[in-house]
Amino acid sequence: MLAPVLAHLKPQLDASSYADSVLSGTVLDMACRAWRLGVARGMNRSMSFTFPSLDRVRRVTIVGAGSVGRSWAALYLAHGYDVIVFDPAPECAQATSDFIVNAWPALRQLHASIDPSPPWSRLTFAPSIAQAMRDTDVIQENAPENVELKRQLITEIDQVAPGNRVILSSSGGIGPSALQADCRFPERVVVAHPFNPPHLIPLVEIVVGSRTDPAAARWAGDFMRQLGKRPIVLLREVSGHLANRLQAALMREAFHCLVNEVASAQDIDDAMRYGLGLRWALMGPLMTFHLAGGAGGAQHTLDLAGEAYESWWTDLGTIHLTADVRARIVAATADIAAGRSIADWITWRDEHLVALLRQSGATECGV
Amino acid sequence: MLAPVLAHLKPQLDASSYADSVLSGTVLDMACRAWRLGVARGMNRSMSFTFPSLDRVRRVTIVGAGSVGRSWAALYLAHGYDVIVFDPAPECAQATSDFIVNAWPALRQLHASIDPSPPWSRLTFAPSIAQAMRDTDVIQENAPENVELKRQLITEIDQVAPGNRVILSSSGGIGPSALQADCRFPERVVVAHPFNPPHLIPLVEIVVGSRTDPAAARWAGDFMRQLGKRPIVLLREVSGHLANRLQAALMREAFHCLVNEVASAQDIDDAMRYGLGLRWALMGPLMTFHLAGGAGGAQHTLDLAGEAYESWWTDLGTIHLTADVRARIVAATADIAAGRSIADWITWRDEHLVALLRQSGATECGV
Repeated sequence: MLAPVLAHLKPQLDASSYADSVLSGTVLDMACRAWRLGVARGMNRSMSFTFPSLDRVRRVTIVGAGSVGRSWAALYLAHGYDVIVFDPAPECAQATSDFIVNAWPALRQLHASIDPSPPWSRLTFAPSIAQAMRDTDVIQENAPENVELKRQLITEIDQVAPGNRVILSSSGGIGPSALQADCRFPERVVVAHPFNPPHLIPLVEIVVGSRTDPAAARWAGDFMRQLGKRPIVLLREVSGHLANRLQAALMREAFHCLVNEVASAQDIDDAMRYGLGLRWALMGPLMTFHLAGGAGGAQHTLDLAGEAYESWWTDLGTIHLTADVRARIVAATADIAAGRSIADWITWRDEHLVALLRQSGATECGV
Repeated sequence: MLAPVLAHLKPQLDASSYADSVLSGTVLDMACRAWRLGVARGMNRSMSFTFPSLDRVRRVTIVGAGSVGRSWAALYLAHGYDVIVFDPAPECAQATSDFIVNAWPALRQLHASIDPSPPWSRLTFAPSIAQAMRDTDVIQENAPENVELKRQLITEIDQVAPGNRVILSSSGGIGPSALQADCRFPERVVVAHPFNPPHLIPLVEIVVGSRTDPAAARWAGDFMRQLGKRPIVLLREVSGHLANRLQAALMREAFHCLVNEVASAQDIDDAMRYGLGLRWALMGPLMTFHLAGGAGGAQHTLDLAGEAYESWWTDLGTIHLTADVRARIVAATADIAAGRSIADWITWRDEHLVALLRQSGATECGV
């Protein structure tokens, strides 16, 4: 089964198209430098980059092919893009291909028009960052969540990628200002943070840095919508963006209740799955709060439960990930996994996510 | 359409069965007092109450028929119980009946065997708490979330209900120790906290107080399972029980991000609906954390993201429901309601909840 995969694992070098790319990249770099010079001299900022036209985007570069990068690769392939992957790990090609094989059935259920099997001819692996930028139209960076590592990597990408190609970072909580700091063309650096697993969960957080061109953020949002994603746009940079802050707030209390034995691990998870999570699959916290008040809406919820909320907030716990707490968390997750492997649980999750996506995204209120 | 409803709004008094009830109640009260005396004298605690056999529970008393009590009434009727309702509000009967009419189609989708239309002959309204206890097998209390009000009400119920009938409180965050404090038979007071809307969301939190008989908690859990609910059992009393603590933690950060303009109201809600909520409809925070680490599980998630979580926790916001914050919340919910009425949104939510319940609850991992 993997023979057609393995046939495409070697980096495919095409000297002529690479030369074209470098050439067009050089021309564009000159234009970009001129624009930045103009900005520096106080010229009109409307002399923006011209980013690639969305309908001409054909090739996506994936830098970093851990669980997030592999999942992006599968999604981009499913949407008809050529994908070139760079990751220094020796198992990159095999692991990425294995991931795509496993992800493909779910992608086919969501996107009926895609190929019956993964289009291996559109997937290539590059031996260096520079080669991964050949002919690229957009770059998706997915390195581990470490600010120095990510900044260095994005600086390196910026050095070799044509200056008008948008660099999307999958950063889960580090803002783009820190990532773009050393770039030649910081204007094209945008956070486009997906949620695990990125090939299925629609949400993408778009975050701009202090030196990001608003046009790059618009481009990123439009590109994500073209991929079938649901982008939201942060109004400011904050640690953890938005969704990981919401998640972290809830996780802190879940860990607190676990460690303080308010409920068993299984019951903590069931409180979400059979309670809170069902509502939140349909609507966010604000709409949930609105409907909790019945006909009186959020005002009535505040009247009824505002005092209770204030008292709960006072009582919420804090926690630190000491060695003991980490051990409790690992034991708790082993407990609720109930002897089934992580691979089994991921397969189960993805099958049900597909069904939920087909269900919950189908209609809007009154439409 | 409402004619058959209105025909049953008057309290239906049946003197002979009422007398039987009082009689059997008196006998049981004596047994219960003897048991308590035994406990006080240090006799074996295994001389527990004998609560009604579950398969003989026929009549449920609803005390308090706001949005929670009405929804319980609909669920109990759908499961074949006789329901007697007491609420001092003059609109109680009409509002409860209207609610049941609206809820019935969703209940029929979830429980195929129930009557095509609400069984009005099994729904009665009592003019007093004492009369609401006629022939009752179990009491569900749903007063507003105010400790003095609820304690007084439960004390009053306890005075007139046969001593071995379990009193379930829908308390959303007040523990049973405070509620049972003045009862003759505190042993039978158990919190059974549902989630809005109770006739659809499976989760029920079972909480015992310092004087609750463990047998009453087991009875409550078994009774809830018989109703198709998913009970979880708290290991200790804490303010907000478990699920409202998790919800409050997330709401605090959502309100903080709203007020500090991290994202628009719509984007805050979309972060949940198109991201976090889809996963949480399938699995709780602990399993989500486990799978986020890929093959390495929770240990790997801790290695990769533990430091990030610690930094996010340090940065999370606090908020107080000042007049200004309340106004911002009300404006935000009006914004995302997009001109559609709360009734429309509730109809939309319930239709989609039914579909999600049929989908997400269908299978477990590997089963």
